[in-house]
Amino acid sequence: MSQEAQIDLDTPDTIRMSVAEATVLGEAALQRVGYSGEDARIIVDQLVDNALCGYKFAGLPRILAIAGDEKTGKARTPVKVVHETPLSALMDGGNNVGYIVAYRAAEVAIDKARKHGMASVGAYNSYYSGRNAYFVEKVVKEGFVAMHIASAKPRAVPPGAARPALGTNPLCFGFPSDNGPVIFDMGTAALMWGDIMLHAHLGQALPEGIGYDENGTPTTDANAALRGGVATFGGYKGYGLAFAVQALGLLAGAALARGEVQDYGFLFWVVDPNMMLPGGDFQRQMAELVTKIKATPRQPGVDEIRVPSERAYRERERRRKEGIVLERKVVESLKAL
Amino acid sequence: MSQEAQIDLDTPDTIRMSVAEATVLGEAALQRVGYSGEDARIIVDQLVDNALCGYKFAGLPRILAIAGDEKTGKARTPVKVVHETPLSALMDGGNNVGYIVAYRAAEVAIDKARKHGMASVGAYNSYYSGRNAYFVEKVVKEGFVAMHIASAKPRAVPPGAARPALGTNPLCFGFPSDNGPVIFDMGTAALMWGDIMLHAHLGQALPEGIGYDENGTPTTDANAALRGGVATFGGYKGYGLAFAVQALGLLAGAALARGEVQDYGFLFWVVDPNMMLPGGDFQRQMAELVTKIKATPRQPGVDEIRVPSERAYRERERRRKEGIVLERKVVESLKAL
Repeated sequence: MSQEAQIDLDTPDTIRMSVAEATVLGEAALQRVGYSGEDARIIVDQLVDNALCGYKFAGLPRILAIAGDEKTGKARTPVKVVHETPLSALMDGGNNVGYIVAYRAAEVAIDKARKHGMASVGAYNSYYSGRNAYFVEKVVKEGFVAMHIASAKPRAVPPGAARPALGTNPLCFGFPSDNGPVIFDMGTAALMWGDIMLHAHLGQALPEGIGYDENGTPTTDANAALRGGVATFGGYKGYGLAFAVQALGLLAGAALARGEVQDYGFLFWVVDPNMMLPGGDFQRQMAELVTKIKATPRQPGVDEIRVPSERAYRERERRRKEGIVLERKVVESLKAL
Repeated sequence: MSQEAQIDLDTPDTIRMSVAEATVLGEAALQRVGYSGEDARIIVDQLVDNALCGYKFAGLPRILAIAGDEKTGKARTPVKVVHETPLSALMDGGNNVGYIVAYRAAEVAIDKARKHGMASVGAYNSYYSGRNAYFVEKVVKEGFVAMHIASAKPRAVPPGAARPALGTNPLCFGFPSDNGPVIFDMGTAALMWGDIMLHAHLGQALPEGIGYDENGTPTTDANAALRGGVATFGGYKGYGLAFAVQALGLLAGAALARGEVQDYGFLFWVVDPNMMLPGGDFQRQMAELVTKIKATPRQPGVDEIRVPSERAYRERERRRKEGIVLERKVVESLKAL
């Protein structure tokens, strides 16, 4: 996700809210569109965290998207484990939104890793789960190393292709350290789908080489790209990663929902580092690795070498005190739900 | 690794050999520089496979590099497990070359995954292990899904840095399918270190934006980059992946060899797909995913959408019949060892 620190400007069109205020607003809105108190709490906890970390359009505005999504109106059943071993679980998401399904899968993975040192947990029959780093941080805070992927329906266009064949397929790794969690979270598409929707909404052109229209012709028109697709990032390497995430999604049961091999799947692989390195050595070494990398000599004019998640967590600390800034229109729309 | 099919030209400076001939040549050369018959067999099996798959400079010429490496002359002890649980192992590589150490780690990972459905195995106190996909294919052929990383000493320069802080740190995923293994293997540096050595050897300039000299100044001089470093690939995403691989290397014990957190570590995470999806569904779905992706509509002039490892395995089949082509000078040097 974006690497640049964001300044939160107060304008006549914005409202600044504390975490508690934003949470109440979000949970009430979700309950009015039919979510239980617990489901609303799970969803809003991530949305507020996304806003705190600087992913503005992954915050409370997403509730409007959830409310407007046709899937929200369809029948939902509780997330449940359909196949299980001591180390693994396969979970049917019951057509719940991914925010809830991936959260439940992370809980099961934590429980199994705590008991056995390792776990592989997958979930399917779901859709959009938001920010992978949110779930991985929960797992890492329990002391575990984790890999988490989310495969999806085709949006991303492989090199040489004219139509999407892969999801935007994020991949995330997380590590505990003596100085707190260190999380690396990346999408394998050249641009997040949400960013393309945002460009379309604002009438902004896409950078060159990112979008394809519905005929497979390269385009900078974001609306055309919404009907077409987005390039995978970084040539064959990004394509290969997107492919691997789609395959790992199959391991999470992606094809069991609708019989489609290109579909949503959430997979967690969790390992207790004390099983590998006894005595907390890993957490200490991770902190040292971060220190060493940050101490690397820099190019002229560069103030700092940042490590993954550092910017997000620094901004989160700041916004916990300063509050988060929402568009007045978004707040009004949420209240009107 | 390279995506382009290679033509093997016979010239007065080349010798064409069968797999059997190349194997005898390689094993004899390694035994003359002090490797046991079994170690020589393990190393040459990979080198011949690399040559068959089209990674020419990862083939038998590597024996000359091994013979010339100062580490080869140093004391070696057999690879051994130093810490173990039913699901995990930490292995001391005994200063053996990575070809042997990662091979032994893969064997242990296969054994544990066969018994328990899942395994995490790491190895340290080693160096250069060659091509990750080779080891992962061995694991996948036993029916398992695998992730494998190899962290290394600093060669790769993070964005904004003037000195290397990360290894070239390859990351590899492998999947069994009804049509055979599907493996994705990538380096996280902008160019493989071996490619930079090759450019230096041939006196070729590097592409722009790849190399840094020992002062951190961007350079296209490959010899200067050997004393400096190589950029991580793909901006912050590639840097983040390289970081994650270095962290996973710590989980493999990387820091236990020399007390350095930026060092060699080989990690395997192995999962039995039947533990997740009973009844061989995963292997069938993987084959279908490959078929679906290959059937994606193409850009004008594009003959084929390839999936990871497809080119390499196609070339391997061809070269098994046609033989591999070696430089006459390399063959003579190997015979003279």
